[in-house]
Amino acid sequence: MKNYQTPLQDMQFLLFDVFQADQGWADLPEFSGQLDRSTATAMLDEAAKLTEQQIAPLNRSGDEEGARWDNGVVSTPAGFLEAYQLFSEGGWTGLTGNPHYGGLGMPKSLAVLVDEMLFAANSSFALYPALSAGACMAIDAHASPALKERFLPPMYAGTWAGSMCLTEPHSGSDLGLIRTRAEPLNDGTFAITGTKIFITGGDQDLTDNIIHLVLAKLPGAPEGSRGISLFLVPKVWVNDDGTLQGANGVSCGSIEHKMGIKGSATCVMNFDAARGYLIGQENRGLQCMFTMMNCERLSIGIQGIGCADMSYQNAALYARERLQGRDTNTSDNSRPADPILCHPDVRRMLLDMRSTTEAGRALAVYLGMQIDIAKHGTSAVARANADALVALLIPVAKAFFTDLGLQSTILGQQVFGGHGYVREWGQEQLVRDVRIAQIYEGTNGIQAMDLIQRKVFANRGEALGVFIQEMRTWMQGGTAPTLSSFVAMQSRYLDTLEALTQRLIVKGEASPQELGAAACDYLHVVGYITYGYLWLRMMHTAQAKQDSHAATKQKTGAYYFQRILPRVDSLIASIDAGSVAMMAFGSDEF
Amino acid sequence: MKNYQTPLQDMQFLLFDVFQADQGWADLPEFSGQLDRSTATAMLDEAAKLTEQQIAPLNRSGDEEGARWDNGVVSTPAGFLEAYQLFSEGGWTGLTGNPHYGGLGMPKSLAVLVDEMLFAANSSFALYPALSAGACMAIDAHASPALKERFLPPMYAGTWAGSMCLTEPHSGSDLGLIRTRAEPLNDGTFAITGTKIFITGGDQDLTDNIIHLVLAKLPGAPEGSRGISLFLVPKVWVNDDGTLQGANGVSCGSIEHKMGIKGSATCVMNFDAARGYLIGQENRGLQCMFTMMNCERLSIGIQGIGCADMSYQNAALYARERLQGRDTNTSDNSRPADPILCHPDVRRMLLDMRSTTEAGRALAVYLGMQIDIAKHGTSAVARANADALVALLIPVAKAFFTDLGLQSTILGQQVFGGHGYVREWGQEQLVRDVRIAQIYEGTNGIQAMDLIQRKVFANRGEALGVFIQEMRTWMQGGTAPTLSSFVAMQSRYLDTLEALTQRLIVKGEASPQELGAAACDYLHVVGYITYGYLWLRMMHTAQAKQDSHAATKQKTGAYYFQRILPRVDSLIASIDAGSVAMMAFGSDEF
Repeated sequence: MKNYQTPLQDMQFLLFDVFQADQGWADLPEFSGQLDRSTATAMLDEAAKLTEQQIAPLNRSGDEEGARWDNGVVSTPAGFLEAYQLFSEGGWTGLTGNPHYGGLGMPKSLAVLVDEMLFAANSSFALYPALSAGACMAIDAHASPALKERFLPPMYAGTWAGSMCLTEPHSGSDLGLIRTRAEPLNDGTFAITGTKIFITGGDQDLTDNIIHLVLAKLPGAPEGSRGISLFLVPKVWVNDDGTLQGANGVSCGSIEHKMGIKGSATCVMNFDAARGYLIGQENRGLQCMFTMMNCERLSIGIQGIGCADMSYQNAALYARERLQGRDTNTSDNSRPADPILCHPDVRRMLLDMRSTTEAGRALAVYLGMQIDIAKHGTSAVARANADALVALLIPVAKAFFTDLGLQSTILGQQVFGGHGYVREWGQEQLVRDVRIAQIYEGTNGIQAMDLIQRKVFANRGEALGVFIQEMRTWMQGGTAPTLSSFVAMQSRYLDTLEALTQRLIVKGEASPQELGAAACDYLHVVGYITYGYLWLRMMHTAQAKQDSHAATKQKTGAYYFQRILPRVDSLIASIDAGSVAMMAFGSDEF
Repeated sequence: MKNYQTPLQDMQFLLFDVFQADQGWADLPEFSGQLDRSTATAMLDEAAKLTEQQIAPLNRSGDEEGARWDNGVVSTPAGFLEAYQLFSEGGWTGLTGNPHYGGLGMPKSLAVLVDEMLFAANSSFALYPALSAGACMAIDAHASPALKERFLPPMYAGTWAGSMCLTEPHSGSDLGLIRTRAEPLNDGTFAITGTKIFITGGDQDLTDNIIHLVLAKLPGAPEGSRGISLFLVPKVWVNDDGTLQGANGVSCGSIEHKMGIKGSATCVMNFDAARGYLIGQENRGLQCMFTMMNCERLSIGIQGIGCADMSYQNAALYARERLQGRDTNTSDNSRPADPILCHPDVRRMLLDMRSTTEAGRALAVYLGMQIDIAKHGTSAVARANADALVALLIPVAKAFFTDLGLQSTILGQQVFGGHGYVREWGQEQLVRDVRIAQIYEGTNGIQAMDLIQRKVFANRGEALGVFIQEMRTWMQGGTAPTLSSFVAMQSRYLDTLEALTQRLIVKGEASPQELGAAACDYLHVVGYITYGYLWLRMMHTAQAKQDSHAATKQKTGAYYFQRILPRVDSLIASIDAGSVAMMAFGSDEF
């Protein structure tokens, strides 16, 4: 397998040329004076070096060895500990953390690129800091100052980690069904009892302590999702002075044997009257989770982009070197065959991967910037606008990045022929590793329902209308004549999306099943059209640059418009067919 | 995981109601009087029982244990030997074999259904008899009577097996590059020397001998694919009287560590001056392979259908039993949540799987019947017509069955949420196992080039025109009024396919790259439209029947037309964009 090579040039092109993130940072007091172009560039270089040299080399060995569970103790694969320590020492575990408690306070618009590097290089490894960062975010947003003071500094420093304990065997997408109980103790803490499954990093041997955020029900709590509270439950109890006291009734019952991300320990966690603190208000646990969900879902979506990029890099190298068949356009008989890159169908596979991955990276940066504004914007209006845009597009990013991510790893595998199916080239691992990203952090079906129901239907398309208007305004700002056919195409698709959305709102009023029947296809429609916008922005910027990266960018964008964007047509036809055909079946007919 | 349940009712519906295969058999002297409806039904029942009870239970254990290689010796997973012996004793290894040499002489139209059972239940196991059957077919078609007499009876009986040795490390899709050499010996045999890779069942512990069919080059043979000959090389040399003599310079150097089909030994085979017989004419080895290729490619395509059906069965059961979320149409509060089958998006996933799998099964039976006519038809015209249809549609079947098969296993996995990603539910294994079917037996990209270049462009669309005419004629034969909207839709798509094909022929004359750029999408267009035809035939037949199977059939067909067939639209838009966007890149831009 090819060594991972961070696409630094493309990252800088997006950050500084397309989106002027450095200007955006300067406009936010949180980052102004702390982060400029050269600092960001240096950080990306450093992250790339660490990722390429320390983390990527553990990807395949981590898959082969896997995380292990032995008598209640979890071990991560060889090398993970050393790499995690290097990573922590560099400050990366606290990259976006609150500086008041020792975090680096960097913006999400920068962090998304570091996320991408980690997932591209080693998805199993990436999950340990990713989940920990999520837990920190929830603690920072909802815990008391005393708890923050006690827990955040070691978590940001990477000497402790965090986990998110939501799912139970009978309760996954429907968290209202959880049974884990929290009983109040005399000292204001709670005794948590129950079993959680699918807990990423629920146990590991990388850190001295693990801070579990656990959803549980208080006595007499309302039924369903309105009766769920959030608790902070340390693996090892922490004294008020921050020293470790001893085990706390938290144990790992087993780990899952999975299709992929085998180096990531996916744990069954047993809480046996484990002590914990309430975080946020009683019965508002799900709301506390929602605070961080946009950031987390974006990070998990980025797994799709990272794996897709690694797949592209690997397959492109193979296609340049593998000699098989003849180029119909040349007759160079000096070698027995030509590189398979000469075959249009191989180029199709590579360009399908590349044109969707680069658009995904652009959307990740764009959303990262909106998240930064939503959190740190100087005006309430700016914050609210950014927040609405983030709410609208996060389910799209999570599901679309990962759906296309899986497609890209499969295409990359196909480029390799039989060699793609055996372990040694690394392609089959990418397929197995990325597959989980369509499932966890809310399945892509759940994302699609979130988009169409809560983010579009509930506000009668208003939020989407704002985004469509942003795209139209940008296009009206003027682009080079060479882009005019693509601008016209995008413009038509925006009209199409608007009309489709109106049809769906009318149908959804008659029956919510119509929204469910349309949801996944609709999310893809929004995804493809959003990528069209991002391609226009990239191509527009590339017009003004003369380097080879910019020249290739233009070609890749043209490919996207000509060969990918028309996928929208069939999706709309399927959506317009409605729910009748699928709801006509009785349960016993399946 | 659910136990595999053979879809016997659907199989009989296709064989006897839709296609009247029993009448077709009666019309062919080869089968007339030997095979009628009750015999065929009894055979399918017997095959189903054996598959469900003996072979399916070894699927997961076979995956976990895997085939092993130890010091040159390959072991199959526990239980495979006993199951293989039961399977052989039932005559199934010789199911389609030449009765003159001990085969059962059954038609392909019946065998496709047994193939489906085996692949649905246990893809790894299925491959051992599948490859052996392919080798038998090539021997039967091209070897001398003496060799047939010596080798075929034990192969049909399953005491010996066969393998196909084509690929070499540097020579996969491009077989013209092979380096394995064949030196003539004094006694009319040849000494074969070289290394072959990716040899399914190249070694195993199921049979007393393995008969390798090996592509190699004779001294002074022409360059490329015109200089390849086919040799029969036994693992253990066989005396003229059929007794085993001793080892023959054939050894297994290692087996591959693969994404899936782990119970199937994929071998590196070393031939070290191994003795063998020339099969067929010198330098005509590839043509000998082509003889059996249609049958083999259909069988491998059927792996896609089998795995898709197993995925559907598994996911449908889970969707009926898993309680999560609420049915928006009812308010049954007697249970904590409703089965996820109530959610339209879950039904979408199940019906995407089911509507494509059932159409695939229909195409397999249809093609099986055409293969039978092509081989045993009583008139030269009938044979030639069937042969042309088979040649046209086999690449479609192989690639389309397996592309949709992968989609179906992924959809089934998604229905399970997180449980689909862990081993215990069996879904992730289906994804891993079916993935190879898009690669081996000619990658799906190669199938697509075969279709557009050799089967369509080379005869200027004539063969496709014949098939389109068959579809139109059938539709003109009259169908129930309830089908009229679907007939109209199909009719429009036939016009569309005709026009598209004409455009591509014109473009292909200007540049072969236009064909390559269109190939994969074009194959899918042909596949979806062919499935439309098969759905009409199934729905038409179901109209006349009053049972619940027929009622569900109608609904599934309606779903196909409304939600799946429109995928053609976007594919055509992508095809019409042509090759320019992908060929604009220099090699160094990838």
